[in-house]
Amino acid sequence: MTISAANIQTIAFDADDTLWRNEDIFIHAQDEFINLLLPYHDENYVRSHLAEVQIENLQHFGYGIKGFTLSMIETAIELTEGRITGSEIHEIMQLAKCMLSSPVELLPNVAKVLSALQGEYRLLVITKGDLLDQESKLARSGIADQFDTIEIVSNKTADAYQQILQRHAIFVENFLMVGNSLKSDILPVLDIGAQALHIPYHSTWEHEQVTDYTLLRYPQLASLRDIEQLLDWLQQPSFDNHKAIL
Amino acid sequence: MTISAANIQTIAFDADDTLWRNEDIFIHAQDEFINLLLPYHDENYVRSHLAEVQIENLQHFGYGIKGFTLSMIETAIELTEGRITGSEIHEIMQLAKCMLSSPVELLPNVAKVLSALQGEYRLLVITKGDLLDQESKLARSGIADQFDTIEIVSNKTADAYQQILQRHAIFVENFLMVGNSLKSDILPVLDIGAQALHIPYHSTWEHEQVTDYTLLRYPQLASLRDIEQLLDWLQQPSFDNHKAIL
Repeated sequence: MTISAANIQTIAFDADDTLWRNEDIFIHAQDEFINLLLPYHDENYVRSHLAEVQIENLQHFGYGIKGFTLSMIETAIELTEGRITGSEIHEIMQLAKCMLSSPVELLPNVAKVLSALQGEYRLLVITKGDLLDQESKLARSGIADQFDTIEIVSNKTADAYQQILQRHAIFVENFLMVGNSLKSDILPVLDIGAQALHIPYHSTWEHEQVTDYTLLRYPQLASLRDIEQLLDWLQQPSFDNHKAIL
Repeated sequence: MTISAANIQTIAFDADDTLWRNEDIFIHAQDEFINLLLPYHDENYVRSHLAEVQIENLQHFGYGIKGFTLSMIETAIELTEGRITGSEIHEIMQLAKCMLSSPVELLPNVAKVLSALQGEYRLLVITKGDLLDQESKLARSGIADQFDTIEIVSNKTADAYQQILQRHAIFVENFLMVGNSLKSDILPVLDIGAQALHIPYHSTWEHEQVTDYTLLRYPQLASLRDIEQLLDWLQQPSFDNHKAIL
């Protein structure tokens, strides 16, 4: 199967861990949280219980820092059988505010890539998480103006992508999604018949990981540093997408 | 100044406390929260401190149940100087989950009003709050299909309305917003030169209240029960908007 990059007119970028660092902020907060609970339980136990509570709570709270914070609080209460103190929970609240005000650190070459693509392609951001938090990060990123449209969704399903394409009158054959998460940015986009370019991030939240690699039917780029390769690829009349670019 | 209702082609409805009951859920949760803290402080003190924390936290957490829950937890910790127990905070977490799964109770005549307007007008929902929570309420409301477009925003500013109108190629003179909050649904819409119809709800969150009524330049309807009056009003060639309909 080959896909044609020559047809691409719209390029949508995931935001967290594609345009800017994000997972590191969660990893750091999680480490602080584990330190807080070390007097009660060992690291692995805390880590795995937090992961369970988080996944269970996605249906209630969705993605984002507020839901993550509520899950940390719930985990702390459960793992201490209610013995956690108000002051310790106060520290978790402080972690949340710290996460929300973390500086937005663009990944290497993002600004350069966007400048190169602007004018040639219609550029979108498609991101999931808390509305206010994602808007605030975009505003602080300094790159919001480079995009024609910003779409913040609660979950990146095939259906969510289809609705976005429909809303903006984009044909699947003209659409490319670029992102770090196979589960959110790549597989649902391939499912609707559009194209996707995977740029792995050095760490990906376990929940976002896909273990079935038998369907490796998307191209991959090591990082946005490789802008020349991205641009080359976009100009190719057709591309064998079984083969990773790098 | 008169406005012409005859030009209206698009009608946007606020959701919380316009299409379905919402503030009651917050009031109930707040009462439970106050009961929880009564062993530490008197009712008025808890109530006013929670309101302060909530307003202060809007910049971090935005509108919605998750932010409200984090504010309840923060208030509980502050007012007990950290003496609140893990089990008591667990009760606050349970309040949150209870709020999130509350049944969506449509206000009287909503379904009838929407049926009467459908086909004649382009119908939108414009609501603010948590993305997942608002989507979930719309899905559970049973009326989502009656709307052409759903817009969930982090804050209802004049700028937010302007962006929505621009995105959907709606001219201000053809746009009517219907809602219960002067601050969110009426004043910013009048500011951009569009029209707004106020349907007060029996209780409005203090933060949403506007005290400067000197600019009463919008029509008001006692409830959506008055559908005939709404439809009559929409068919009038011009309307003196200094005068409330009811």
